[in-house]
Amino acid sequence: MSEVQAAQIQVSEIQELIEWLASFGGTKEGGVTRLLYSKEWVQAQTALKEKMEDNGFQAYFDQVGNLYGRIEGKEETDRFILTGSHIDTVIQGGKYDGAYGILASFLAVKRLVENFGKPKKTIEVVALCEEEGSRFPLAYWGSRNIMGEYSPMTIEGMVDTEGVFFKQAMTEAGFPYPDYQTKKREDIEHFVELHIEQGGILEKGQLDLGLVSHIVGQKRFTITLNGESNHAGTTPMQERKDALVCAANAISELTAIAKADYPSLRITTGQIIAKPNVPNVIAGNVKFTLDIRHHEADVLEEFCERAIQQLHQLANSNGIGIDVDLWTDIRPVPLDTKLHEKMQNKLEEKELKHTTMVSGAGHDAQVFGHYLPTTMLFVPSKDGISHSPLEFTDSSQLEIGVSVLMEYLYELAY
Amino acid sequence: MSEVQAAQIQVSEIQELIEWLASFGGTKEGGVTRLLYSKEWVQAQTALKEKMEDNGFQAYFDQVGNLYGRIEGKEETDRFILTGSHIDTVIQGGKYDGAYGILASFLAVKRLVENFGKPKKTIEVVALCEEEGSRFPLAYWGSRNIMGEYSPMTIEGMVDTEGVFFKQAMTEAGFPYPDYQTKKREDIEHFVELHIEQGGILEKGQLDLGLVSHIVGQKRFTITLNGESNHAGTTPMQERKDALVCAANAISELTAIAKADYPSLRITTGQIIAKPNVPNVIAGNVKFTLDIRHHEADVLEEFCERAIQQLHQLANSNGIGIDVDLWTDIRPVPLDTKLHEKMQNKLEEKELKHTTMVSGAGHDAQVFGHYLPTTMLFVPSKDGISHSPLEFTDSSQLEIGVSVLMEYLYELAY
Repeated sequence: MSEVQAAQIQVSEIQELIEWLASFGGTKEGGVTRLLYSKEWVQAQTALKEKMEDNGFQAYFDQVGNLYGRIEGKEETDRFILTGSHIDTVIQGGKYDGAYGILASFLAVKRLVENFGKPKKTIEVVALCEEEGSRFPLAYWGSRNIMGEYSPMTIEGMVDTEGVFFKQAMTEAGFPYPDYQTKKREDIEHFVELHIEQGGILEKGQLDLGLVSHIVGQKRFTITLNGESNHAGTTPMQERKDALVCAANAISELTAIAKADYPSLRITTGQIIAKPNVPNVIAGNVKFTLDIRHHEADVLEEFCERAIQQLHQLANSNGIGIDVDLWTDIRPVPLDTKLHEKMQNKLEEKELKHTTMVSGAGHDAQVFGHYLPTTMLFVPSKDGISHSPLEFTDSSQLEIGVSVLMEYLYELAY
Repeated sequence: MSEVQAAQIQVSEIQELIEWLASFGGTKEGGVTRLLYSKEWVQAQTALKEKMEDNGFQAYFDQVGNLYGRIEGKEETDRFILTGSHIDTVIQGGKYDGAYGILASFLAVKRLVENFGKPKKTIEVVALCEEEGSRFPLAYWGSRNIMGEYSPMTIEGMVDTEGVFFKQAMTEAGFPYPDYQTKKREDIEHFVELHIEQGGILEKGQLDLGLVSHIVGQKRFTITLNGESNHAGTTPMQERKDALVCAANAISELTAIAKADYPSLRITTGQIIAKPNVPNVIAGNVKFTLDIRHHEADVLEEFCERAIQQLHQLANSNGIGIDVDLWTDIRPVPLDTKLHEKMQNKLEEKELKHTTMVSGAGHDAQVFGHYLPTTMLFVPSKDGISHSPLEFTDSSQLEIGVSVLMEYLYELAY
């Protein structure tokens, strides 16, 4: 068998696994909907457990439904290398987000064992039960449970949009709520996550790999402006308390400040709701969101303080009442970059084009990154699209990710 | 009977009539809902016809349901003076908008006849059947039919929100659709309309009367911006095609231009809809409205041209697709101001504080104003509120309107 033939087989192997896993919760639009503890979720985790066992992994679930596939190390078994990603998707999500990280880890470890036998250190492949927050109003249920951050209190009384209690969904999926308790794993030495980029940086730069240095911090605000609803024809401009003009000024000015003075910062108003929202009535009330992200905590803080000051000033000078509600506040997480540095030669050898980059999206790696050395790698996303049936990464790019992950895990465990 | 007593009786008379008419379609919130051809509308017009007849008017309906109360002139009967307003209201409207103009006209003519006998010229009081456009998607159905502007084609296939055909509603209200045809009245010499201001200019200036010189022209646009929906965290600022930021810039800039360079112009974005309208996703599509009003056609044209140019420039420079849809285009109407000038001495005599002003809202007077000398007068509105159960004008202010209307009609018909 020539090297080319071998490469083709490998390319089809990861793509086949992706398609196989996407069949659990596959939608007619070509996407995947696999919500925490749903029927599709149970089917996917169960099938994955079987596949792990069929390939020589010791597979087991923890109390919340994280699935592990263990390859016992020859020398060290008390602590282990964890690698994987999450099994859940958003509603009408893609085939790659989360799934790729699990399957690439599975394949990398399988091939390592095939090629080099058992590792020195134990490796576990993980299919984290939940990251997206798409069924219940919480996120990182998998990783944050592993790090002991959640407790029965977290989900007390929590229901999904159909009124199903978290407790009930959990129990029915095979993870009895009464057994659930906070339990932090202390035996993880290093976490490695491979993921699609969900942005266009690698694709635009024609790069193979992103070596993630930080995961951004995020603050999300809802700004409520209370002006005066009035007749669009009879109210002179200077008499108006137009909440929508005030919102427009705020969005324009904050975006301009961010672009001018904070090069890596990202600010987004994704949601705006005006009332009464009628063409010939001045909007008396406007709510809009601000999603602000940066990888350095002090820069994020500084900008947000400046933004809030600016918002109050704008509202006050227009006689408009303002309420600023901070409802998400996640600190930036610096990841382990030492491993990336160590691997530079290997990447050069393989002639892989790569860049060090910040992740603008949240990942399980940010949860682990608070506690232990955590490494994250990106492969390109076509057109930067994610959370959509259009999500796509080419087989050869997926395969590059798997082979690099093999190198990283070899470095850590062999 | 002293003058004071007489005044008190008069004050209660207009207020009593307002309350009486508001009982047809009165809501529990203290407002009025009286939609064209509804049961309440039929009751109101029928009761008003009876009241006219009881007070010596010859009352009759035309083919679409405009109600006239005629006082035959002693000298001229071929042409006549028309005075009144509209009987319909918006959903959950007030007691004064439209109703006041009809009742004040009725009372003024009644008192003129009581005090001075029959006029030289015929006077007709009119309760126009529809102005608001609140049930069917057309407005000024009453006045535009009188001016021959509507035809059976206008209402062909038209239904209300409950699926009732216009034709059917009309016929059931007692105005058989098969009889309906376009018919312009050529016998109106002058139209006079008294109305509440629906704004705060008179109240803030502590004025009794507004002498309306123009009714503004209006252009209403819907602007659609097509950018690219993308991840709020992973899309760098310089790569974005953020339709909402573009909309915010547009609203800010156009408002600033209007305020700086077009003193009497009014511009309003009352409605904005962003898609997908989710906090952590860049809005790929935004629709917003622009309601632009001015009393001079050339200024309105000039500003709108400049605005559209600015919008295209903004969109193009951000790589965003734009569609500009003009869906309302009403020319400004200069009203007859000669009569106001003639009446100045009378107003001074009565020590009435007044101002010449532009109406920022549309009225039946603008329909008549295209064809014949048309005079419009405003009385104050409390807090500038209209189209609401909170609509209110003080009895003494209502009565001032009636007495001034008497003077105007005396000048025209005696």
